[in-house]
Amino acid sequence: MRKALALLSVFALNVGAADNIRTLRGYSEQTSTSELQWEQKFREIPDPARLRENMQRLSARPHHVGSAYDKDNAEWILEQLKSWGLEAEIETFDTLFPTPRERSLEMLTPTDYKARLEEPAVAADPTSGQKDEQLPTYNAFSIDGDVTAPVVYVNYGTPDDYKELERMGVSVKGAIALARYGQSWRGIKPTVAAEHGAVGCLIYSDPHEDGYVEGDVFPAGPMRPEGGVQRGSVMDMPVYPGDPQTPGVGAVPGAKKLPLDQVKTLTKIPVMPISYQDAEPLLKALTGETVPASWRGSLPFPYHVGPGPTKVHLHLKFNWDRKPLYDVVMRIKGAKYPDEWVIRGNHHDAWVNGAEDPISGTSPELEEARALGQLLKQGWKPDRTIIYCFWDGEEPALLGSTEWVETHADELRQHTVAYINSDGNGRGFMRAGGSHSLENFVNGVMKDITDPESKMDVWKRVRLADISKATPEKRAELRSRADLPIFALGSGSDYTSFLDHLGVASLDLGYGGEDEGGQYHSIYDDFYWYTHFQDTDFVYGRALSQTAGTMMMRLADAPVIPFQFGDFADTVHTYVTELKKLAADERAKIKEQNDEIDEGVYQAIADPKKKMVAPSKESLPPYLNFAPLENASDELTRAAAAYDKALTAAGGNAPASVNAKLIQSERMLVDSRGLPNRPWFQHLIYAPGFYTGYGVKTIPGVREAIEQKQWTIVDEQITRVSQALQREADLLDQAAKQLASKPASGA
Amino acid sequence: MRKALALLSVFALNVGAADNIRTLRGYSEQTSTSELQWEQKFREIPDPARLRENMQRLSARPHHVGSAYDKDNAEWILEQLKSWGLEAEIETFDTLFPTPRERSLEMLTPTDYKARLEEPAVAADPTSGQKDEQLPTYNAFSIDGDVTAPVVYVNYGTPDDYKELERMGVSVKGAIALARYGQSWRGIKPTVAAEHGAVGCLIYSDPHEDGYVEGDVFPAGPMRPEGGVQRGSVMDMPVYPGDPQTPGVGAVPGAKKLPLDQVKTLTKIPVMPISYQDAEPLLKALTGETVPASWRGSLPFPYHVGPGPTKVHLHLKFNWDRKPLYDVVMRIKGAKYPDEWVIRGNHHDAWVNGAEDPISGTSPELEEARALGQLLKQGWKPDRTIIYCFWDGEEPALLGSTEWVETHADELRQHTVAYINSDGNGRGFMRAGGSHSLENFVNGVMKDITDPESKMDVWKRVRLADISKATPEKRAELRSRADLPIFALGSGSDYTSFLDHLGVASLDLGYGGEDEGGQYHSIYDDFYWYTHFQDTDFVYGRALSQTAGTMMMRLADAPVIPFQFGDFADTVHTYVTELKKLAADERAKIKEQNDEIDEGVYQAIADPKKKMVAPSKESLPPYLNFAPLENASDELTRAAAAYDKALTAAGGNAPASVNAKLIQSERMLVDSRGLPNRPWFQHLIYAPGFYTGYGVKTIPGVREAIEQKQWTIVDEQITRVSQALQREADLLDQAAKQLASKPASGA
Repeated sequence: MRKALALLSVFALNVGAADNIRTLRGYSEQTSTSELQWEQKFREIPDPARLRENMQRLSARPHHVGSAYDKDNAEWILEQLKSWGLEAEIETFDTLFPTPRERSLEMLTPTDYKARLEEPAVAADPTSGQKDEQLPTYNAFSIDGDVTAPVVYVNYGTPDDYKELERMGVSVKGAIALARYGQSWRGIKPTVAAEHGAVGCLIYSDPHEDGYVEGDVFPAGPMRPEGGVQRGSVMDMPVYPGDPQTPGVGAVPGAKKLPLDQVKTLTKIPVMPISYQDAEPLLKALTGETVPASWRGSLPFPYHVGPGPTKVHLHLKFNWDRKPLYDVVMRIKGAKYPDEWVIRGNHHDAWVNGAEDPISGTSPELEEARALGQLLKQGWKPDRTIIYCFWDGEEPALLGSTEWVETHADELRQHTVAYINSDGNGRGFMRAGGSHSLENFVNGVMKDITDPESKMDVWKRVRLADISKATPEKRAELRSRADLPIFALGSGSDYTSFLDHLGVASLDLGYGGEDEGGQYHSIYDDFYWYTHFQDTDFVYGRALSQTAGTMMMRLADAPVIPFQFGDFADTVHTYVTELKKLAADERAKIKEQNDEIDEGVYQAIADPKKKMVAPSKESLPPYLNFAPLENASDELTRAAAAYDKALTAAGGNAPASVNAKLIQSERMLVDSRGLPNRPWFQHLIYAPGFYTGYGVKTIPGVREAIEQKQWTIVDEQITRVSQALQREADLLDQAAKQLASKPASGA
Repeated sequence: MRKALALLSVFALNVGAADNIRTLRGYSEQTSTSELQWEQKFREIPDPARLRENMQRLSARPHHVGSAYDKDNAEWILEQLKSWGLEAEIETFDTLFPTPRERSLEMLTPTDYKARLEEPAVAADPTSGQKDEQLPTYNAFSIDGDVTAPVVYVNYGTPDDYKELERMGVSVKGAIALARYGQSWRGIKPTVAAEHGAVGCLIYSDPHEDGYVEGDVFPAGPMRPEGGVQRGSVMDMPVYPGDPQTPGVGAVPGAKKLPLDQVKTLTKIPVMPISYQDAEPLLKALTGETVPASWRGSLPFPYHVGPGPTKVHLHLKFNWDRKPLYDVVMRIKGAKYPDEWVIRGNHHDAWVNGAEDPISGTSPELEEARALGQLLKQGWKPDRTIIYCFWDGEEPALLGSTEWVETHADELRQHTVAYINSDGNGRGFMRAGGSHSLENFVNGVMKDITDPESKMDVWKRVRLADISKATPEKRAELRSRADLPIFALGSGSDYTSFLDHLGVASLDLGYGGEDEGGQYHSIYDDFYWYTHFQDTDFVYGRALSQTAGTMMMRLADAPVIPFQFGDFADTVHTYVTELKKLAADERAKIKEQNDEIDEGVYQAIADPKKKMVAPSKESLPPYLNFAPLENASDELTRAAAAYDKALTAAGGNAPASVNAKLIQSERMLVDSRGLPNRPWFQHLIYAPGFYTGYGVKTIPGVREAIEQKQWTIVDEQITRVSQALQREADLLDQAAKQLASKPASGA
C-alpha cells in the first residue's frame, strides 16, 4: 500500500546539526556518548550490494497472499535472520482473501469493445512475463456481480464530485460509475458510488495522475504505460482493517468468524480497476455535459459526464477462500527492561512482484536486522526488547499486522514503547509521519544521517528543500521553529492497528520525492523497473536502514524514553485552530450560499444552453463551544513544559516508574468507545478519514462531525478529546513529580 | 484581433437599477427625461434578423486586406449607410502588408515529416472550402528566412520561460524555438526567442489552451480541430502599431516612407504558426529534460524540452507589397456642438471569413447606424457630432485606425470627447474596459440594457456573476462599491491609437463568457460555425447595438460631458498600491534568493540525475520614493470630489467652456516624450506591456522599469506620472470653478 507522500514540512533553527558532543534526550552525558558510538558502528554495516540482492531475491516471482513464493519469501527471511544468530519465528493466521474467478467488461453501445483486463508483458523486463503466477488485475473485496448499465464519469468519485454531478442534473442511479484513481483512496470510490445508487464501479488510471503526463512511460521511462493497471483493495477499511470475518480479534484457529453475508466491509457493488487503454473507448463515447475544468483527465479528447450512449456489461466472480498468512517476527531481548518493547515493521507480501512496494522497504529492514546481529556479536545489548516484524497480507487489508496486533493486543498495550513502520522507499528527501510525542526524537535522528546525494545531514536537506518551496509567509515560521514538523498519519500501511486501535506511539518513515511516478500495484513494479529508474544504487535503501535502525537503538537504550510533549501540544493547538476555522468557514459558506440564493445569483449565472440545478437554502449551523479543547490544550502545553524542566533537572537519570508512565502516554489519547460509527478506531487525535480512506483526519471525531454537518454530536466529541488531553497532562504531571522526587537511579 | 477577455469585476450597491425617473449625470432633469425617451426608442430598432443577414453578407468570402471582398465589403457598408440617409465616405490608405509566397516546414531528424501548413475544409461548412481566396496560414510581418536547426520547446515563450530554461541548462542559441500560443501575445514570442539567440520560431495551438481540452472540436462542437491554425500578426506593435514604414504619420500619398531595412517592427527571425497536428511529430520526437509541470500541454505524450533529436528546415518568403485600406467613415453633425466629436468603431477586415472576428461586432455597429438614421428621421438630433468608423486592416497591425488617427491627429486631439470600440461579440456577460473617467458612465448605461437570457439588466447580471466567483475576502468589497470597475486597456484592437497615442478617453465593449473557445483567426471562424455555436440567435448582437448606441447618444447629448473622476482617482490609488507592493516584492524576492544561496538551498535541492543551474546572487534594488505619486493621487481624489460637488450644484447646466476643459481631461495624462524606448505610446496610465503585447501595464513607465529592474529610471517616471495626475487635478479645479462662477446656461 502507499503511504501519504507529504514531505516533512520544515520548521527549524539551524542548531546542533553537527553537534557531536551533544547529550541525547533521555540520556545522561555518559550513556549518550556510549550510545552514539554504538549507533555509529551500526550505520557502517548496511550494504547497498546486499540491499540489491535482497530485492532481487524477494521480488523474483509474484508473492501475493496465498502464493507459493509468498510462503517461500517468509521462510527465506526467517532463515536469513537465524543465520545471523537472531531469534525469530513465523506466526501464521488464516484470513479471507478473495481472488478472481471470472472477470469481463464489454462495451455494448455505441460500439462494441471488449476490455483487455490484462497488463502486457514487456520484452526488456524479464519478470513482467510471469503470467502463470501473476494475480489478474482486480480490486480485492469487491463483491461478485453481473450488471449491464450506462456509464457515468464521476471524476475521482469523492462526495464533492457527486455534489457537482447534482448541480449538473446528472444521477448515477442504476448506472456504472467510471472513476479515475486519485484524490481519495480507491475503496472510497465504490462506497460513495453505491451511496448514490450506482450498480457498479470502474476505476481507471488516467494519464493525468499516472502516466505520460509526468514523464516517459515504461520501458522508456518510469511512468505507467497505457496498459498498466493499479490493483488494490477496496475493503471498507475506514470501518475496520484486517480479516473481515474476525473484526477486533486475531484470526487464529478457533476464532469466531462472521458469516460472509454479515461482513460489513465488503463493497456494496462490483468494482474493477482498468487501464486507461481500456477506459479510453468508454470515455470517448460518452456524451452529455462537458466536464468542469477540474474534472478533465489527459486523454486526447473532450471528457463528457454522460450518461449515454456508453453502455457496458460488467461481470465479476471471485473465489471467496481463506488463505494463510506468514508474519516473520524476530526478537532481541532487552538486557535491562525486557518488558518494554520497541517494534519495527515492513510488509513482505506484494500485489505482484512488488520491488518498490514493499521490497524497497523490506530489504533495508532485513539489513537492519543483520546489522543488529553483528552489533550483538560485538558486545552491544539493547536495554529494551527489540522486535522486528516482516508482515504478510498488508496489500489486501493490513491483514498480517492487524491480526497479529489483535491477537496480542493486551500485552502490546502493556509493553510497547513505539512502533516504527516503513513500506517501500525511494530516492530523495526523508519523510516521516506519526505521533507528535516522537517529533523531537525524529529530528534528532535525522541530524545523524548523511544524505547520500548532497552529503549534508538529511535534516538540513529537508529543511532547506522546504524553505525553497515555501510561500514568503511560511518562511519566517520555517526558519524559527526548532523541530521540523512530522505529518499526522492516516492509514495505508501497517502502523494502523498499532496507532489507531491500540494507541501505540508510531512512526512511518521513508525517502522519496526524486523518483516519483511509477508502477504502483502493477506487474511492472519489479526488479528491472526499480533498478533502472528508482534508487538504482540502493544508497537511499542504506539511508533508510541507517535511519530506522538508529531510531530502534536509541529508543531501546534510552534511560528515559525520549518522548517530548511540547511539539505534541504545539501541534494540538494548530488542530484546534483549524477546527475553529473549519466550523466558522462552514457557517460562512452556508450563509453566503443562502444570501446568494436570495440575491438571485443563480438566476444571473444560469446559461440556458447548459443544464444546471441551483442549490437549495440550508439551515445555519449552530455556534460551537471549543472552550474545553482550548483549555485542555493549554493544560497540555503547561504540563509538557513542566515535564521537560523536570527531565532536564534529572540529567538523564530516572526511576523505572517514569518509563512505565511514558509507555502509557499515547494510550491516554485512546477512547475504548471508538469513533462515531467505527468503534475499532480508538485514537482521538489521528484517524484515516471516513471519506478519504488513507488521508488523515486529525481530532477526527470533531472534524468529521463538522464536515458531515452532524452538529448534534460535536459537543460530546469535543468533551472526549478534551478529557483525553487532560489525561495526558495529568500523566505528565505525575511523571514530572516522579522525576523530581526520586533522585537519579538507573544507568 | 482579440480583446482581453476579463469580465467586469463587480463592485456595486444595488441602487438605481430600475430607477426610471433618475436624472442622468451631466443632464438637467428635463434634458434627462427627453434623452431617456429617445434612447428607449433607439433600443427598439436593432433587429437580430438583420444582424444575421449582415453577418452572412460580410463573412461570405475571405476579406483580408488587399482581397477583392475586403473592398467589396467596404463599398457595401458605405452603400448601406447612404441608403439610410447617412453621410459617409471611404478613406483610403496605402500600407505595407506582406503575404506568403513560399512556406515550408520539414522535420529532417529523427524521422522525416513534411508539415501540412493548411487547414482542411470541413464538408458541413460551406465557406471552409474557399481555398482560392483564403490567406495561407502565416504570421504577418515575419521576415523571410531559410533556417535548418534543432528545435527547443520554450512553453509560451515568455521571458520567465527563458529564465526557467536557463535553470535547466538549456539554450535556444542557434535553435528554432517551438512555442505554444497563449499567455503572451504571439508577437512577443519571436521577439524574446530572438533576444535569446534563436534563429527561427514556430507557434502552435496546443489543445490545452485551444482544442479538445475545453470541449468538442469543430464540426461536432465549437473548439479548434487538430488541423486548425491561428494566423496573426507578429509585428512588434508594443513599439508602434500601424504601417511599419510610416511611424507616427498617416500613410497617405506623399508620406515619407522608411526603407524596409530600416523598419524596426518586423521580426528579427522567421516565424510561422502551425496546427497541433503539425506540431505533434516535432514535439513527440524531442528528448532532453522533461518539462516542468506548468509547461505541459495536452497532447498525449510526455513533453520534453530538447534540444535533440528534432531538427527542422523552415523556409519562408513573402511578397513585401503595399496594399490599399478602405476605412468607411460616417458622420452625423452635432446640432449644438459640431466641433465636439464622439467616435465609434469596429473593424471590418478579417484573416479569412471572420464571422466572429470581427463581423459579430461590425454587424451590430452597422445596426446602430441604421437605428440612428431612423431616429434622425423621427426628429432626433445629436448635440455633438457622431462619427461611425468601420476600420480596415485591423488584423495585420491596427492599420486602418492607426493611419486614420495619425492622419487626423491634430483635429482629433482638439475635438474628440471619447472613442467607443468593439471587436467581435458573443453570448453571456457584458465586459468593458477603458478610461476610468468613463467607469461611472458605463455603469449607468448597463442599468438600461436588458440581458436577453436572464431578463435582468446587464449591470445586475454581471454584478451577481462576479459575486458568485469571488473569494470570501473580495465579496464584501464587491457588495459595497457603487460602480462596477471596468478593466484597463492594453492593446489588441482599434482603440490603441486613440487611447495610447492621442490620449482620447476610450472604451472597448462586448458580450461573452458563455461561448468561449473557438476558431480564432482560422478558416472555421465563419457563418456556419458562428450560427451553430455562438450567439446563434443574435440576441447578444442586439444587446451590443443597444449598449454601444445608447452610450453614443448619451455622450453626444449630455449638456455636461458625463466624465466622473472619483472612480478614476480610486483606480489610480489601487495602481499606486500595486506598484509599491511590486517594488517591495521584487526586493524581497532578490533578498530571499540571495539568502537561500547563502544557506545552501540549491545544493540541498540539487538532484544529481537532473540538470539544474543554480542562480547567482543579485544586488539588492534601492528603496524607491513613491511619495510624489501618493501626493498626486490624493490631490486627484480631492479635486474629483470638488468637481462632483460643483457639478451637482450646477444641476446639469453649464457653460460650454466646461466641456472644452473636459474634452482635454484625458489628454492631461499624456506625455509627448512617450514611454521609455517607445515614444509612440504616450499615455502614462495605460499601455500594452512591452513583454505582454496585448496585456495591459498600468502606470507603465514605472511598472515596467521595476519589472525590468531598470532602477535608475524609476524616479523620473514617477515624476512624470505625478505631474500628469497633478495636471488632471488642476484641470478639474478649473472646471469646478467654471461651473460655480457661471450660472446655468446651455440647454
